[in-house]
Amino acid sequence: MASSVTRALVFDAYGTLFNIAAVSQACASIAADPDGFVALWRAKQLEYAFLRALMRRYADFWSVTRDALRYAAAATGTALTPQQEAELLEAWYQVEPFPDVLPALRELKARGLTLAILSNGAPPMLERLVRETGLAGMFDRLLSVDAVQTYKPEPAVYALIERELGAAREAALFVSSNFWDVAGARSFGLRVCWINRAGAPPDELGQQPSHVLRSLAELPELIGKPAR
Amino acid sequence: MASSVTRALVFDAYGTLFNIAAVSQACASIAADPDGFVALWRAKQLEYAFLRALMRRYADFWSVTRDALRYAAAATGTALTPQQEAELLEAWYQVEPFPDVLPALRELKARGLTLAILSNGAPPMLERLVRETGLAGMFDRLLSVDAVQTYKPEPAVYALIERELGAAREAALFVSSNFWDVAGARSFGLRVCWINRAGAPPDELGQQPSHVLRSLAELPELIGKPAR
Repeated sequence: MASSVTRALVFDAYGTLFNIAAVSQACASIAADPDGFVALWRAKQLEYAFLRALMRRYADFWSVTRDALRYAAAATGTALTPQQEAELLEAWYQVEPFPDVLPALRELKARGLTLAILSNGAPPMLERLVRETGLAGMFDRLLSVDAVQTYKPEPAVYALIERELGAAREAALFVSSNFWDVAGARSFGLRVCWINRAGAPPDELGQQPSHVLRSLAELPELIGKPAR
Repeated sequence: MASSVTRALVFDAYGTLFNIAAVSQACASIAADPDGFVALWRAKQLEYAFLRALMRRYADFWSVTRDALRYAAAATGTALTPQQEAELLEAWYQVEPFPDVLPALRELKARGLTLAILSNGAPPMLERLVRETGLAGMFDRLLSVDAVQTYKPEPAVYALIERELGAAREAALFVSSNFWDVAGARSFGLRVCWINRAGAPPDELGQQPSHVLRSLAELPELIGKPAR
């Protein structure tokens, strides 16, 4: 059973490691209904990523995030100056790790596990994000969909784990808070841990997570002792 | 320029020909916030279609509609009996054509144009829908994504127009109210008319419609006299 021992942990970024509450806060000063504005922005950001993948018209996540912001502004009648637009986009770099993230990563890293990120984010977004949040030293690799010019949950994205980390599919555990991402990774054939901090219902996509945890704090216990 | 004369008109179904207000009305009796409930149901219906296409896990639109309903019920704490679930799904057959649809179709058909539907809907949904709304005689073909086991806006879906109608790409005009569908058809290379009844802003997907109309009533004038 050596092949099913977990040797690599691969994390989704936004919403899983990083709390995007900073984006909501940045919207507070510009929108009449900040919660509604950020919900629309985030929904369109994901929708545009899915649609561009389906249309075979990849544009990186920074462009998609900017395009979604412009739509949200137009749809809500919110006039944005170029400076306001730049400040709102900057908020995606101001996101912070959830409190349970750093202690869990430290413990898992100390055990000699390979740690990586697999994100829809563009490489410059991911690099700056881990650098500014002090997490850069934690990860062996930052994997971006940009390498395959499409978006999760296309199978080609999850195939990056074997291709780029050299970890057999059975030796990797994928960790995400976003159920559609959990479903995509499971559908591809990975073992997946769903981090369900909010106690949300699962999406009905015909896929179930291998494990469900309330936070990353429970992850070291789930993994258990590594085989040496 | 004979090849750019419009010989076939291909319509999206839900939201373009058919007003889905009946679905909202059906939700009025079961949900505390019917507008919020139906908005979530519809958003998840589309999201699940996109995600299944990306995951290469096609399930027909009837299944996706039912799965989205179950999620919406779980997420809003709305208990549904099997009979209530069946009644809500039945509402998708109770949708009615917008008032501008039948007069426009009659005029276009009288001119000898080929008329067809190209929809995410499963074949039995489309067949029953046109039969019960009295539109069955209007259409030469009902084209469903089911033939290619994926969803709009994947290029394979729009390729059905040439393959199944025998209409050259340049001789077809695609008509949709859903901007993501407009973008997909344009990206594929079709001429597209966006029916923007609500005066909505366009989505930021790097694609622009060939024409924008406020209703189907303006379509016969747009097409002009056919070449004989």
